[in-house]
Amino acid sequence: METDVPRDHPRYQSLLTRHRIEEGVDRGITSRQGLIAEGRGEAFDYLLGEQTIPSADEAERAAAAQLLLAEHAVLSVNGNVAALVPGEMVELADAIGADLEVNLFNRTDERMRAIADYLVAHGATEVKGLAADARIPGLSHERGKVDADGIYDADVVLVPLEDGDRAEALADLGKTEIVVDLNPMSRSPQTAAIPVVDNILRAVPNVTAHARDLADASREELRAVVDAFDREAALEAAERRIRTGTLEN
Amino acid sequence: METDVPRDHPRYQSLLTRHRIEEGVDRGITSRQGLIAEGRGEAFDYLLGEQTIPSADEAERAAAAQLLLAEHAVLSVNGNVAALVPGEMVELADAIGADLEVNLFNRTDERMRAIADYLVAHGATEVKGLAADARIPGLSHERGKVDADGIYDADVVLVPLEDGDRAEALADLGKTEIVVDLNPMSRSPQTAAIPVVDNILRAVPNVTAHARDLADASREELRAVVDAFDREAALEAAERRIRTGTLEN
Repeated sequence: METDVPRDHPRYQSLLTRHRIEEGVDRGITSRQGLIAEGRGEAFDYLLGEQTIPSADEAERAAAAQLLLAEHAVLSVNGNVAALVPGEMVELADAIGADLEVNLFNRTDERMRAIADYLVAHGATEVKGLAADARIPGLSHERGKVDADGIYDADVVLVPLEDGDRAEALADLGKTEIVVDLNPMSRSPQTAAIPVVDNILRAVPNVTAHARDLADASREELRAVVDAFDREAALEAAERRIRTGTLEN
Repeated sequence: METDVPRDHPRYQSLLTRHRIEEGVDRGITSRQGLIAEGRGEAFDYLLGEQTIPSADEAERAAAAQLLLAEHAVLSVNGNVAALVPGEMVELADAIGADLEVNLFNRTDERMRAIADYLVAHGATEVKGLAADARIPGLSHERGKVDADGIYDADVVLVPLEDGDRAEALADLGKTEIVVDLNPMSRSPQTAAIPVVDNILRAVPNVTAHARDLADASREELRAVVDAFDREAALEAAERRIRTGTLEN
């Protein structure tokens, strides 16, 4: 274990998150904007009751099925994703045979390399994003950079904690997009084919668990899982939970 | 103006906030925890509709009256308060004849001095908190430090963006406490005699405006303003707004 906090401590998840974010700052992975974004996420998670609600679990199962159906799945990793779930992202990539690609809102070579190294330290064998030999149309030069054999080529992308402009530009490119975001009203989940409204620390391991559970499913069965997922209903359920959930208690 | 953003820009307040927080980080005033706390505040402000709701305006008027009634009012300043509203806190202190005292959750001499200097640069003539010659009972040594002729002696304290433990310990000491916090469910506003659920950038100038408006009021009139304020109703109104406000739009 990376902290001394016992797993059954009532604040285990929150203390683990704090520990990982601090580590991310020390390593030059988490930015100032990343710390503020983490705080926004904390507030929405608090309102959600800090748990995976049933509609989020359904979204995570649909995400797993969609990733398994992909011809070329790519998992996008930004600073907070790297800081919060480095090993979990590597495990998910392994479970579904996806690429990992680093993508930053404020791109600097130093942070790109720090994040790629951090993923390798957590077991990744290959990390894309450093070639930056293709561009997403509709975004400014630095923010549109992707790898030609990575996100640019992908049919399915998982973009956790993604900025709204980028999420829209990727959807406009025809990618099937899976977003993880704790605010169901923000543009990224509103744009996504599969919006996952959950804390990334719970979401990523649960997508992996569903992917393992679905490993032997036929393409028809996987398609049925994806088709059964109702994105509008899931977004509404998350909003309802925020509105009436924890606040009623 | 400190930024190039015009005041009528739809994102003026959010851009100004961002600018001030960045400045605070550059000056060693805003901590990592402060950045995360800023993000939590942003989420709750978003749910409140980024405006001063009527019950918050009533709380701000009651706060002004309570501060004017005080024998010895002290305004507590932590890292985020200093970064976000340095000049506004100095103006409020002048308007009501209160002391300013620096108080940090993670106290270091360097940050204490940086914050005191920043307040002086924004017009403060005296800043307390560096003597640290008294202690609030019930808090660990470093966190309980206050000035004997400052918060320790005060009958009314304004503690914006305050930690729950400290807010409770101050209330236990018999202080009449005014808290500014965007989460009506958190412990600090629940503890306060006058909880102000509003963005500090809107709240502090509005308390000052009410104080100026009430400058000639008699003590009876001031007491009537304080007595008319219903803290339970204000907390409930803020919760209701978060629950049904922006989300309905």
